[in-house]
Amino acid sequence: MAERQVVLKIDIPWREVQGGVVAPTGFLAGACACGIKKEDYDLALLLSERPTSTAALFTTNEIVAAPVRLSKEFIKKGPTRAVVVSSGNANACTGPQGYLNAMAMAEATARELGLPPSEVIVASTGIIGQPLPMEKVLTGIKETGKKMGRDPQHGASFARAIMTTDTRPKELALKIDTGGRTIILGGAAKGAGMIAPAMATMLAFITTDATLPKKQLQECLIKAADRSFNQITIDGHMSTNDMVVLMANGAGGESNLKGKELATFQEALDYLCRELARGIVKDAEGATKFVRILVKGAKREGDARIIARAIANSPLVKTAINGEDPNWGRIISAAGAAGITLDEKRLRLYISELLIFEGGMPVASSGRELQGIMRGEELDLRLELGLGKAEAEVWTCDLSEKYVTINAKYHT
Amino acid sequence: MAERQVVLKIDIPWREVQGGVVAPTGFLAGACACGIKKEDYDLALLLSERPTSTAALFTTNEIVAAPVRLSKEFIKKGPTRAVVVSSGNANACTGPQGYLNAMAMAEATARELGLPPSEVIVASTGIIGQPLPMEKVLTGIKETGKKMGRDPQHGASFARAIMTTDTRPKELALKIDTGGRTIILGGAAKGAGMIAPAMATMLAFITTDATLPKKQLQECLIKAADRSFNQITIDGHMSTNDMVVLMANGAGGESNLKGKELATFQEALDYLCRELARGIVKDAEGATKFVRILVKGAKREGDARIIARAIANSPLVKTAINGEDPNWGRIISAAGAAGITLDEKRLRLYISELLIFEGGMPVASSGRELQGIMRGEELDLRLELGLGKAEAEVWTCDLSEKYVTINAKYHT
Repeated sequence: MAERQVVLKIDIPWREVQGGVVAPTGFLAGACACGIKKEDYDLALLLSERPTSTAALFTTNEIVAAPVRLSKEFIKKGPTRAVVVSSGNANACTGPQGYLNAMAMAEATARELGLPPSEVIVASTGIIGQPLPMEKVLTGIKETGKKMGRDPQHGASFARAIMTTDTRPKELALKIDTGGRTIILGGAAKGAGMIAPAMATMLAFITTDATLPKKQLQECLIKAADRSFNQITIDGHMSTNDMVVLMANGAGGESNLKGKELATFQEALDYLCRELARGIVKDAEGATKFVRILVKGAKREGDARIIARAIANSPLVKTAINGEDPNWGRIISAAGAAGITLDEKRLRLYISELLIFEGGMPVASSGRELQGIMRGEELDLRLELGLGKAEAEVWTCDLSEKYVTINAKYHT
Repeated sequence: MAERQVVLKIDIPWREVQGGVVAPTGFLAGACACGIKKEDYDLALLLSERPTSTAALFTTNEIVAAPVRLSKEFIKKGPTRAVVVSSGNANACTGPQGYLNAMAMAEATARELGLPPSEVIVASTGIIGQPLPMEKVLTGIKETGKKMGRDPQHGASFARAIMTTDTRPKELALKIDTGGRTIILGGAAKGAGMIAPAMATMLAFITTDATLPKKQLQECLIKAADRSFNQITIDGHMSTNDMVVLMANGAGGESNLKGKELATFQEALDYLCRELARGIVKDAEGATKFVRILVKGAKREGDARIIARAIANSPLVKTAINGEDPNWGRIISAAGAAGITLDEKRLRLYISELLIFEGGMPVASSGRELQGIMRGEELDLRLELGLGKAEAEVWTCDLSEKYVTINAKYHT
């Protein structure tokens, strides 16, 4: 069969702009170093000047940190338009006092910004099971409240203040031409990193001047998260503090987004969330490789997801990738141990488009070429099950000695 | 409430003896270095002079190595009384040729020992997806067949030949006073170690001169394995080659074990399997600590097992233990992420009998004492859920930099 290369030119209806969470009209941010962490920014505020619709997703861990419990209540109750984040201490497993401390953070922020406390979303990330140093936190909130602004540097300091073991801030903003009007979408995220210890929290805050009612905004966020934050795994250990918040303040136009405008907004939101999620994986503790795992040909999407996660969370697969060892047998055996019925003879394994395993045995010619592929910084593992049409994708990274060092050697 | 120490003297109806798998009457073993591994023994034979009842358990991985497929057929078909094991190559994911190679191992062993091939159980452990070097293997079988014996050194060489990344052989034999007669039970196991790569196989071979029909022997083995091999996890990655075999040749008495005799035999078998399983965990790749995880107070045993495994397989829990970091928040958050409904306020976490977490918050006084406990070589984690009466126990080890080095840096 002859092949022909077709180059499609697709106009992407957005371009990157500066500013992260303060890029959309009407958002302000600020940050300071209040002393929870030994150094660097550890307290951040975000505010919309106008009322917002707010969508949010929270950890599904059965053990839920105090700020998550409080923020869930506030978002259920009514509109919210500010966020306070502390990093270095998760305020999780801290009992009734933890809840009171989260509430005190909301109250202090509300006082500073002239809002009711229930309009302030509270997020914390860091060590589990230790009391928040409230004096420092409250002083930090006061200090930050006085230096908020809308310049790109304010967005940057917000992105920096929510970091824990992240080595670089992760932020992005997009100017979107929806066909009718121009909308801006901004976001900042912090990743799955742990140090000194249990700094495992994934947080993401997204802002937009689009106009959308809360229910629709929530649907948009669920879709975008399913295609991004929900398909990444660093070490299979979900935190007690995970939170993704999307605030839309409608500063970009009176009427709600609909039809093609809404579709374009969703596309841009997907893109932004995927880029932030990729950023989290690439900056995971000790990570040297970005690994995309695609499981195809499953009977059910759930099956595909279980297998993709089993591969992604296998320490043997992850260490082989770290060592650039073309040890594909670990991928096959991880898939086989996932608890989903497989037919070995129907399996096909590709690594970055090179066919490795087919018909129950290795493809003889692939050895040397595979060694070269393993040296790349990005790897695509594609496992075709040959059982159906469902598929799932998971992004992960390798497991390095540095991961162990970071998580074992930095004592509490 | 006053406490009083009661010292119970319990007579254990067995004592350790030399010889491992050849300790029971009528068993012979031998081993040699045939060249699959760069150095050391890599081929072993085991034979019962008399016909045996054989019980066996195999991997539940969907991807099953050729020797496992073949041995399952043989054991289903009729009596077996020999075992051939090669180490250094798993003969997994090797297609039809792999199956023919496993068959050729059975045939060569059968010729050497004067048996039909279907009486020879075949086991292999080592790298996945590479053809067995059959010339070496067949030469090794011939050589080993000529030097089999019943001295303890023959049992020791068997235990050594089945090793891969194990750093020491794991064998044990017990002389059991069943009340009526004396029975001997011997066993050798190799552990979950991977190197050069994917040497993940857990193998155990157990011999006895007890008299038991196959069906009853299988029941005994299932019970013993549930309390030992099935409750250990090194890295949550089940292999394609796992196999536990128990051969009973009846040399110790005519009539079948029954009643109290059978109960004592089961107890001793449990003990032997638990000791071998402990040996595997203690000698796991890079392991520095033995960790016993007990989850109590679950609604269902399955729930308790899922939570215990989630804790045992969390890289964050394992790295904290490696670093002797009293970071119990990772244990709680791993439990919470296991997908089982929990009530944070009812949880109680003990580390080696020290209460750490209760009523949704840390026990204030436990900090300093815990730091001392973390330095021990054995740790007991006990999580009480307060939801029911079911429990489960899992044994694991820590995750060290050396684990990553072994599995990443030793290239194929």
